This record gives sequence, structure tokens and C-alpha cells, in this order.
Amino acid sequence: MPPAPFVRSGKSSRTTDSPISYFIQKAIENPGLVSFAAGLVDEGSLPVEEVRATAAEILSDQLAGQAALQYGSTQGLTALREQVLKLVCDADGVTPADVNLTAADVCITTGSQQLLYLVGEILFDPDDIVITEAPSYFVFHSLLQSHGARVLTVPMDADGMRTDELEALLDRLRRSGELPRVKAVYTVDYFQNPTGLSLSVERRKKLVELVRRFSTDHRILILEDAAYRELRFTGDDLPSAKRFDTANEYVIYTSTFSKPCAPGLKTGYAIMPPDVMEAVLHLKGSHDFGSASLSQHIASRLSASPAYARHAEELRGVYRHKRDVMLKALETEFADFPAASWTVPAGGFYVWLTLDGIDTGTTSPLMAAALEAGVLYVPGECGHVADESGCVPNNEIRLCFGVATPEQVTEGIRRLRKACAALSGSKKKVVAKV
Amino acid sequence: MPPAPFVRSGKSSRTTDSPISYFIQKAIENPGLVSFAAGLVDEGSLPVEEVRATAAEILSDQLAGQAALQYGSTQGLTALREQVLKLVCDADGVTPADVNLTAADVCITTGSQQLLYLVGEILFDPDDIVITEAPSYFVFHSLLQSHGARVLTVPMDADGMRTDELEALLDRLRRSGELPRVKAVYTVDYFQNPTGLSLSVERRKKLVELVRRFSTDHRILILEDAAYRELRFTGDDLPSAKRFDTANEYVIYTSTFSKPCAPGLKTGYAIMPPDVMEAVLHLKGSHDFGSASLSQHIASRLSASPAYARHAEELRGVYRHKRDVMLKALETEFADFPAASWTVPAGGFYVWLTLDGIDTGTTSPLMAAALEAGVLYVPGECGHVADESGCVPNNEIRLCFGVATPEQVTEGIRRLRKACAALSGSKKKVVAKV
Repeated sequence: MPPAPFVRSGKSSRTTDSPISYFIQKAIENPGLVSFAAGLVDEGSLPVEEVRATAAEILSDQLAGQAALQYGSTQGLTALREQVLKLVCDADGVTPADVNLTAADVCITTGSQQLLYLVGEILFDPDDIVITEAPSYFVFHSLLQSHGARVLTVPMDADGMRTDELEALLDRLRRSGELPRVKAVYTVDYFQNPTGLSLSVERRKKLVELVRRFSTDHRILILEDAAYRELRFTGDDLPSAKRFDTANEYVIYTSTFSKPCAPGLKTGYAIMPPDVMEAVLHLKGSHDFGSASLSQHIASRLSASPAYARHAEELRGVYRHKRDVMLKALETEFADFPAASWTVPAGGFYVWLTLDGIDTGTTSPLMAAALEAGVLYVPGECGHVADESGCVPNNEIRLCFGVATPEQVTEGIRRLRKACAALSGSKKKVVAKV
Repeated sequence: MPPAPFVRSGKSSRTTDSPISYFIQKAIENPGLVSFAAGLVDEGSLPVEEVRATAAEILSDQLAGQAALQYGSTQGLTALREQVLKLVCDADGVTPADVNLTAADVCITTGSQQLLYLVGEILFDPDDIVITEAPSYFVFHSLLQSHGARVLTVPMDADGMRTDELEALLDRLRRSGELPRVKAVYTVDYFQNPTGLSLSVERRKKLVELVRRFSTDHRILILEDAAYRELRFTGDDLPSAKRFDTANEYVIYTSTFSKPCAPGLKTGYAIMPPDVMEAVLHLKGSHDFGSASLSQHIASRLSASPAYARHAEELRGVYRHKRDVMLKALETEFADFPAASWTVPAGGFYVWLTLDGIDTGTTSPLMAAALEAGVLYVPGECGHVADESGCVPNNEIRLCFGVATPEQVTEGIRRLRKACAALSGSKKKVVAKV
């Protein structure tokens, strides 16, 4: 007789499998697939030699080695926090004092994902509200579901989140009496996952101004996810929204060494207001009382060395090339397919492909045809939340050029076009819900 | 004008600073202190050379290096999960098949602390009940407070948790109608933190039998924290409680490479029933979608090498010696102090000192005198929860010999005795609350 079931907490009951598991499973089952689904980094350009040299340097020195192998603090290695502060302030063209920051305002986490989780955990009770871009990072949506938060969205255009629409939404929420439930605005403002779009400078200023203005009875925080910032291919770096939060009151800025260095170190970081920091650290103390020390020691030493900047520059070249290959393949393959349009990202990993009138969902004929042709993508619907009528936009596709080789990128787009052709050929009725 | 406060979630409001922060702060302020407070490992015996050689081996091979620096899976590296299964089953003298286990029942976490948090998170809604030993691991109490769980306790004797008392408690809870809220029994059954006591084999069997018997309408889980298992100084290893859960239904077994190898890798693991695993992995996907890969690759290769067993043997020698030094110092210094009695641990890091009639609490005269004399300890009250009348036993001390050198151990006990003397000399009235 099987044992009685255990009784799950409310949070566990709200937590379902991430949609990404489905795609990982598909990729495992079909090793010949070209995967545009996984947000992995390019294998060949991982800094194996740089990490080897750095680890050897640390572990050849008995005292440095002992420090790297002992427990660290919950907040993270001081030298790394100082280095992070310098990296971010340098990128923003300010001194820490200009923006009222010190290394005490920085914490190190197990990837930036852990920071997103912790911030969600300190803020959201069921039915609290978070505002995101539409579409947004789907793993963030999964964790919001765990916390029971309600997601309201703001549309995007070529300049990122429409801050005029955000203002209108906040106004509506104030009038309906729901403003007290609004805890945060989440933005992936550099080469967004999934669209590849960035928030313009004017809108960054406007965003900070808006949360400040609407924070009358309680503070509304901005969670600025800058994970892809260092992977810019064209144009100049943009100042962060954090840059305009000069008293360190409203913006939690998070990023990671996973993209510009190595995911295997699983070392992310965040800069945040002191009262938010206190709440985050109390919970992180219960989670793990500190992320892996060895990774932090490696990230600290490596990010302070010239090898780091060299490597980031090399990476930008690698991903720029893969983006160019993907855009060229799209132009070649989809020239005769007027339903298709796509974004041209200035950095990051993602192209957002719209196929007007074609259902791209997980159970759609297109997905079946794509798998048959040997290519995997993430349906755009994963990044959307349902509107009041329960509808989700479902004629978009996230294409990640992070892990595929240039040859695979070309071949994958060819296969995707073939899948679209198979669809038209099959004369199946295709109805987009939106 | 300062900004409006942000509004914390219920969980954040329940989460306070860990008491350990106070002791860390004290240690930083007084660098001359001998600290018996921090549960850190011995610095000199950290396997710096072994980790250096293993990291070099991995990172000198381009493909192995890339795998270690890429993202991993949420559940953890397969080779490491297989290695963990072998280590635990070998220690228990069974094959995986004997106890219905495969590597799919193992997951890797950011230290065993993360596993404790995740299990708490999937199980506890506010006012759910967990049963622990009295006293128990105080960081676990902190995380239970975050989840809002109620802690009920069972007394211990030289053979660990009194299972007859556990049975009586479960019976009372059944009669009072509270059994449905009992989600788990937590035990640190090898050289317990904080007492150093272990659970006898007979009681391990009894524990599994009890949760099975009381799991009529819902399953009550055992959370077996075996963090110190590999640090046995004397006697034979005991089979785990998991060993007696032969269908893999009731026991979550967790341990870590932090103690027998290096905390800096922050790599823990757990073996658990499939339905519990599913719930844990869904949440871990939201927390971080997998712990640091590089640490896992190092732990995997190192734990499969002869260097690992050699190192564990060496560590047992190091800690056995420090325990002996501490016990000798206690005998020497406290021979003329009849109020003092202490445990003799067969492994681990902790001696539990009872000072009959003396308040040892954080704000007690003894703590002040100890700091004055230059020694730091964790008050026993940190490991206790208040009974119905709000009282907490407060005449005990946790002494950790993990990080202090043998010379510091001797000196620290001398200082502690001096603090006790200062106390008697000061003629202050000392009233123990219990």
C-alpha cells in the first residue's frame, strides 16, 4: 500500500514545473535538434583557461586557498562587493559617493536568479501586485507564481517598456484603490529576455520618477535586471535606472557574472537600498548563509584582472557574429514570408520573432512541425501572462543564439522556415487566440 | 524627506536576524577572543592542495572545463548524485536497490542549509507543526520562524531524542486533533549540533516506525540531518534512519561536503522520496535552477578519489585531538566546580556544557564576564524554544572546537573558568529562569 500523501504548503501547491523543463526534455530526446530554446552561453568561449589560472593562483597560496574553502559571510566576499560597486559605477560614469553607495549596499547571490527569488520573497504575499513588461522573463513569472503575486503588464515598443502606459496603469490602480498592493516594477532593461529590446535613457529617468511619485503611502521598488548589460554589440552603454536613484532608495539593481564570465560560478550580485538589504540578508541567512566562497574568490580576482575585460570584449564579438548570422538567415529564409517580423537586438542573446496569425504555442502545429524539422524554440506565450479574458498572445517566438554555433544558427532558421512551410502546406486551419 | 517604507511580506516580517550575527559581530570587535561560538571548520586542515589538484585536472581539459563552467541542471550533476548515493549506501552497508534508491532520488543543494530551507518551504504554512529535539540546531529554528512553523520538542538523553517521549507527544497531538498539522520530525542524529549526542540504532528504527504508524491521513516526514556523520572519532558508524525507510517513503536524508571536505564549495545533498523530490525541485528551479556547477564538478571528482577518504581520516584525527584537548581542559579547570557537567561527543564539533543554576544567556553576567575574559560561546538558550509559559532553559553553553587551535581551546576553557570565578566573586545574585 502506498503511503499517505504529504501535505504541501500553499507555496508548494502554487509552484509548478517550469516550462523550460519541457524544452530541456525535448532537447535530450532529440540530440540532433538545433536548440534556440535554452538560454545557455556559448560553450567555446567559456573562459576555461582564465578560470584555471585564477583558481591555481588562489589555491597555490595556502592562506588564500583556506579563505576560499572556508565559510564566507551571508552578504558575500568584501573584495568582490567592492569590485562589483566599481564595475557598476564605472559603467554608469559616477563615483559611489555620487549615488550614495558603498560596498555595504552590495550583496552576492547564487546567480541573479536567487536575488530575484529573495526580493520576491521579502515583498510578495498572495495577491500583491508586480508590474512587468509584456512580454517578460518567463522564469521570473514562475517564481512570482510561487509567491502568489499578481502580474500586471505594460506594453513595449522599440524603446522598451512604455512608461506612459505604466503611468496610466498606476493611475488606474490608484483610482481603483489597488495601489497599496503594488510592491514593485520589474524591468529587464538591457537587451531584454525575451525581446532583445532595451529601455531608452529618457524612460529610465521617467521610471524612477514615476515610482517616486506614486510611493506616497508605501514605497514601490524597481527591480532592474541588468543580466545582459555587458553583452552590448553596437552603440554606447546606457546608464542604469539605478544611476537615477541617487539617494539609493527605490532601485534594486541586479546582474551576474554568468553572462560575461561563466555560469558555472553561479555568482550574481545586487545593489539595493539599506532597508531592502537588511530584509534580503535575513532571509538569505536562512536560505544558505552565503553563496559558494570558492566561486566568489575566483570571480573577485578574475573580474579585477585585465583578462576579464579582454574576455568580455571577445564575448561581444562572438555573440555579435551569431546575432548577425541569425539576422541574415532570417532575412534569407523569411524574405518571402510577410507574416514574419523580428527585433534587431543591440546586445544579449535573443531575437523576438513575430509570425502574424500563426499559433506558436507549445501544443501548436508549428511546434510539432518545428520538432519534426529538428529545431526547438520557446513559444512567446511563455513570456506573457493572461489578460482578464484569459487570453495570451501566441504568435511570437523567442530565438536564443547563445549556445548554438553559427552553422547551427543558419541551419536552425532554415528548419524553422521549413516548419512554417509544412504548416501552410498542410492546410490546417490556424487560429491565433489573439 | 526619507522615502515611505516598503511593505514586507508576512514571511519577511517573521524573519529576524540570526543570533549568530551577534556573535560574529562580537568576534570582529574583539580579535583577541577565543571563539567557541562559530561552527566553522579547522582552517589548517582544509584540503587546499587536493582542491587545487582537482580544479587543475578539470580546467586543464577543455571539454571538462566547459562543462564545469556552463549552467548545470536544477537537480545537480549526475556523476555527483551517483557518487553521493554510493557514499551513503556504502556507509549504511546496503546496495541502492536494497533501499529502493537510484541517483534520481538524490539532489544537490547550496550546502545542506538550502535543503533544510526548501523542505521547510514545501511543507510549512504558518502554524504547521515540526517536532525537533530539545535543544536543536538554532539556524534551523530561524528558518522555521520564517516559515511560521510551530516547534514542539522532545527531550534527549545520552541516546539522543527520547522516542518514547516522541510517541507520547504524537499521541497527545492525535487526541487534541492537532496531528494533521504535524508535517515533520527533524533530527540531527549524528553528534548533534548543539549537544554532540547521537541517536541510538534502536531509536532510529523506532523513529521510522513511529512516523509510519502516525501517518494515517497524511504522511509525516523525517528530516534527518547527517551533516557531521563523517566526523566520527570513536566507535562504529551507525546506520542512518534512512536505512530503515526501505521503500523510500518517509525519510529525507541530508548531508554536506562542507564538513568532510570544504565549506567553500558550499555543496550539500539530499536523498528523498520521489514526490518530495518533485516539490523540492520545482521550488529550487525558482530559487536558482541549480547550485554552482564548478563546485559540483570538484566535489564529484574529489569525493571519488582516494584523496577524499585519506582527507576525511586526517580530519577525524584533527578534530579528535581538539575534542580531547577540550575535554581535558574542562576536567582540569572545572574539577572544583560542581555545577559544571558536559557531554563527551563521539564525533562532530560540539561539547554541551551545563552550568547548573547559572544564567548563560546573551545578556547574562556570565556572557559579560566571558567577553571580558576573552572567550565567546553560544548560549544554550539559542537552541531551545520557549515552552507554554514562555520559559527557555538558560544554563547551558554550546562549545565548538571546530575552528579554534588546540592552544586556543585550552586557553579558552581557562578563560571561561575565570569568567565563572568572576561571577561567584562578584556576589551578584544569579537566578536561572528554569
